[in-house]
Amino acid sequence: MPDRDKKLTPFGRIRRVFFGRPIPTALAHHERLGPILGLPVFSSDALSSVAYATEAILGVLVLYSVAFLQHQLLISAMIVLLIWIVALSYNQTIHAYPSGGGSYIVATENLGETPGLLAAASLLIDYVLTVSVSVAAGVAAIASAFPESIIKNHIVALSIVLVLLVMWANLRGLKESGTVFAVPTYGFIVSMVLLILVGAIKATHTPVILNPVLTALEDGKNVIGKELNYAQLFIILRAFAAGCTALTGIEAVSNGVQAFKAPEADNASKTLKWMAALLALMFLGTGILVRHLPDITLYDSGKTLVSQLAAWTFGYKTPLFYVVQVFTALILILAANTSFADFPRLASLIARDGYLPRPLARQGDRLVFHNGIIILSAFACSLIWYFQGQLDNLLPLYAVGVFTAFTLSQTGMVVHWFRLKDRGWHTRAVINGVGAVATFVVTIIILVTKFAEGAWIVAILVPFMYLGFRAIKRRYDEMSRQLSLDLGAPTTPTNHTSLILVPRVHRGILSALDYALLMGLDCKAVHVAIDKKALPNITHDWETYGKGVPMVVLKSPYRSLMQPVLDYIDKLQRENPDQVITVIVPEAVSQRTIHRLLQENVATQLKKALGERDHVVVTNVRYFLE
Amino acid sequence: MPDRDKKLTPFGRIRRVFFGRPIPTALAHHERLGPILGLPVFSSDALSSVAYATEAILGVLVLYSVAFLQHQLLISAMIVLLIWIVALSYNQTIHAYPSGGGSYIVATENLGETPGLLAAASLLIDYVLTVSVSVAAGVAAIASAFPESIIKNHIVALSIVLVLLVMWANLRGLKESGTVFAVPTYGFIVSMVLLILVGAIKATHTPVILNPVLTALEDGKNVIGKELNYAQLFIILRAFAAGCTALTGIEAVSNGVQAFKAPEADNASKTLKWMAALLALMFLGTGILVRHLPDITLYDSGKTLVSQLAAWTFGYKTPLFYVVQVFTALILILAANTSFADFPRLASLIARDGYLPRPLARQGDRLVFHNGIIILSAFACSLIWYFQGQLDNLLPLYAVGVFTAFTLSQTGMVVHWFRLKDRGWHTRAVINGVGAVATFVVTIIILVTKFAEGAWIVAILVPFMYLGFRAIKRRYDEMSRQLSLDLGAPTTPTNHTSLILVPRVHRGILSALDYALLMGLDCKAVHVAIDKKALPNITHDWETYGKGVPMVVLKSPYRSLMQPVLDYIDKLQRENPDQVITVIVPEAVSQRTIHRLLQENVATQLKKALGERDHVVVTNVRYFLE
Repeated sequence: MPDRDKKLTPFGRIRRVFFGRPIPTALAHHERLGPILGLPVFSSDALSSVAYATEAILGVLVLYSVAFLQHQLLISAMIVLLIWIVALSYNQTIHAYPSGGGSYIVATENLGETPGLLAAASLLIDYVLTVSVSVAAGVAAIASAFPESIIKNHIVALSIVLVLLVMWANLRGLKESGTVFAVPTYGFIVSMVLLILVGAIKATHTPVILNPVLTALEDGKNVIGKELNYAQLFIILRAFAAGCTALTGIEAVSNGVQAFKAPEADNASKTLKWMAALLALMFLGTGILVRHLPDITLYDSGKTLVSQLAAWTFGYKTPLFYVVQVFTALILILAANTSFADFPRLASLIARDGYLPRPLARQGDRLVFHNGIIILSAFACSLIWYFQGQLDNLLPLYAVGVFTAFTLSQTGMVVHWFRLKDRGWHTRAVINGVGAVATFVVTIIILVTKFAEGAWIVAILVPFMYLGFRAIKRRYDEMSRQLSLDLGAPTTPTNHTSLILVPRVHRGILSALDYALLMGLDCKAVHVAIDKKALPNITHDWETYGKGVPMVVLKSPYRSLMQPVLDYIDKLQRENPDQVITVIVPEAVSQRTIHRLLQENVATQLKKALGERDHVVVTNVRYFLE
Repeated sequence: MPDRDKKLTPFGRIRRVFFGRPIPTALAHHERLGPILGLPVFSSDALSSVAYATEAILGVLVLYSVAFLQHQLLISAMIVLLIWIVALSYNQTIHAYPSGGGSYIVATENLGETPGLLAAASLLIDYVLTVSVSVAAGVAAIASAFPESIIKNHIVALSIVLVLLVMWANLRGLKESGTVFAVPTYGFIVSMVLLILVGAIKATHTPVILNPVLTALEDGKNVIGKELNYAQLFIILRAFAAGCTALTGIEAVSNGVQAFKAPEADNASKTLKWMAALLALMFLGTGILVRHLPDITLYDSGKTLVSQLAAWTFGYKTPLFYVVQVFTALILILAANTSFADFPRLASLIARDGYLPRPLARQGDRLVFHNGIIILSAFACSLIWYFQGQLDNLLPLYAVGVFTAFTLSQTGMVVHWFRLKDRGWHTRAVINGVGAVATFVVTIIILVTKFAEGAWIVAILVPFMYLGFRAIKRRYDEMSRQLSLDLGAPTTPTNHTSLILVPRVHRGILSALDYALLMGLDCKAVHVAIDKKALPNITHDWETYGKGVPMVVLKSPYRSLMQPVLDYIDKLQRENPDQVITVIVPEAVSQRTIHRLLQENVATQLKKALGERDHVVVTNVRYFLE
């Protein structure tokens, strides 16, 4: 145990165990990743959406009519096509921005401030939703594995506990270690691929069943008719929009190119391709198998579609059934975890440009990093609580932000190629152009078809955040203007006096006095006589220990410490306006937090009480107690 | 409008309107009071108990049997006798302690630490209860005046709003102005005396009625029987205990002798006698009249006993009926208000002796005073909320604390006379001795008879608070020991270096640089290179404006601001352990609170990050922005 640890109080030890050594986040990202470890680190968000995307499509279709279910395969195919287009587009971003090309950076650099900020707002909202949706889906997977347990009645509580656990792990300074990520991600991939293979063999013996049980749900809901073609289209588009949640997280690789081993861009590109292929395979695979299920039920049954698929393929409550459920829950929680790295990282980029409070820019400092993690957890928990942990309520908010960011990023890439005009830029511009148009159309589809269900919240929030960013930036610009050297150097007084506050004479005070004398300051001791009885003692002690420094005694008829000091400072400044006054506040500091409640914090109070008095500096000399 | 006001932001203006100019409490108590203004200032708590004490007696008696109601007059007479004994006792305290003789001071000086602290704990609890009980009774009075209104359904909300209003008035710096107190107090006295006189005339024409309506309540509750004499006694004592709430607040004058005009003790004594006489008159008067009411109902009817008396005497909904209700409500709210002055005052005395955090001792500083007011309001509101604003639930907690403090104070006075042994001390000792015995017996009666109903809460809380006081004192003693000059003066290094943090070069930084140079400090500029691109600019600016002070550039690979600075300080201290390092942190400070959220507070963060590194001083040079 190193020396520093020996000094710890019992409370300090507990805190050490829970939150780890101070400032280890500064050591993160030491390891560089190849594609094999890069895949688990960057793809959990994208791959985990297999757990809910197909169910989301069916959830919309079945609301209207079982007859609509025939469109499910078409919709899934369209989404796979979209995955392909978006992956191709981002593959180009990787090569164009090897230092990391998040939507915020690409949109800002190529399209300007406003599109960049809109992308930033969309992404921040999206990270919050990733946490809420992933954890809610993870809990749904666990509840499906143990349908008889009491989990079903405590969905909200369990989800919030999980968010807090992930928060805790991140506050503790969880590293994005490839090996930690590898087990759940590859476990999920292997179990899902196995599910699809075994399911496919079984499916060859089973006819496509149009889910007969679902017909029970549709009484009086059949809205199909010759005259309802627009409504029909709307419903299909809405189901498509719901399925687009499958694409969330696909941009993660392009944000983190720097985390890969050299050649960074090539390794990242390889990872992206594998991720897209696996996503497409698993999404389409489950989408096809689902059609062979003899009877399926959706959300309110408490059993996820994937769990029903696993039960059909491997047998209900077989070991493999549980394996699928456990890995699904794990990869979903991992997906939530990635937001805990991405949110503070993006916030720091935005803050660096002056659109969020600057302290957020210092990603490396634990304290600051902590704020981002806590804010993210608070928002995610609020959403879970507000929507009662129900995936079908949360999902309509998701994907609007993602696709807005996709669109802005791809449009930015088109402009990028037009500016660069290097060899073969035409092809690249066309690929990103197709990506931009496709994602733009999808954004509009999502916004229109899911507006009433919750997309309106995001549609209102994004412009509000945009205005907030602008207001913050305006204030920083105004501060810069006031601090600008163009206004000339400020004038400072040429004299200096220092006052040392002496409430009573003790070792801490003498330490501060030594400090003042060491700096060769012209100084006076100031005692505020709150307790008149103690005064003779104090003046006597000062004569003995005060090393000849004169003491000024200030009266305080109303037991105020601050007011007499302020009055004295005002008097000194009136007598000689051309001086700076340093007030030295000695402070005995306890090590235990609870003991600190007994301290006066005079320095802080004095600074507050001084208000805007210029040319007064408060210096706090601390004396450490055991 | 003075100059300072012109600078205010709109938010600052609103705050000024709501909370007044800064630090006006330092000006309180400028006026000295005679008995005519002293009576309203110090007696609202005592006199206002007329509004609920008689009702509390009947409330207990009727629970058991209407036949018990015959004892009401006897009980009231006993309480008047008790008022007489306690007033006589406190009259002696006034003369013995002209500088203010609260129970805490008298018990501590004469009986020692433990009794003093028990008295202190009892009183603090009592002040909280005074607020809750008085406000609840005031709301009951208002609800009785307007029984058809919706007030009845919002008792809790209205009570809490009233507590918050009184809190607000006190945060704003309400002075204990005699004239402000005079109107409601004299209004209450006059209206109650009028009620008693008119009622007495009416009563001569009315026989004593044993409240026939109440018989309806008693089915199956008649517990009287020959064999139940102990139970009978218990019930009568319990009713007596309930009536003892009439004595709360009687000690107020003896706490505030200093607020009277010279001769202070004589004026205070005169005020106390008038108060006791008025209290006895009003309490006994209403107690007698109540027996002539043709039908009365208690608590749950939503009509207070006083309101029923006023309706019987003056006629229901006549102007005088409303006058009684309004003045009753006003004096009750005034009674609550007195706790807002007493609670912080007592806390400051306890803190001065080191049993509560020392910051509470500085009564004159607004910030500190504010904490006491807010704590008091929070506890009072919690009690109101927990007991749903119901007087009959709150009252059993009341009076335990008061009578504990009475007993300790009177016992202390007996010891005081035995020590002093001046002329006539025998008589004085006997008077206080009778007071001590009487109040001790009453304390036991209250504790036993009301234990299950709520007195147990106080019985548990007082020892807990006592232990807390002791723990705080132990810590302060330990701090004193560590700071004691007996350990010799601390050793301080003989060298000094100062570092000035330069994130970028602006006017605020130059101001801090001037400060460092003005003090003749040997200093170095330190720049943490978070943004490498900005580095050449900064070094260039520093060459131009840095006045020859050398700049050290620290690398920060992980965007941390703190870690490189800490590492550098550690390196300097390793190289030369015999030095003090001053870190000058320039800070641009905005005036508006919302803008301050955008600031970094680097000085505070650095202090925190420094942990317990000795011989490092953080100095914060502020540059004020518009």
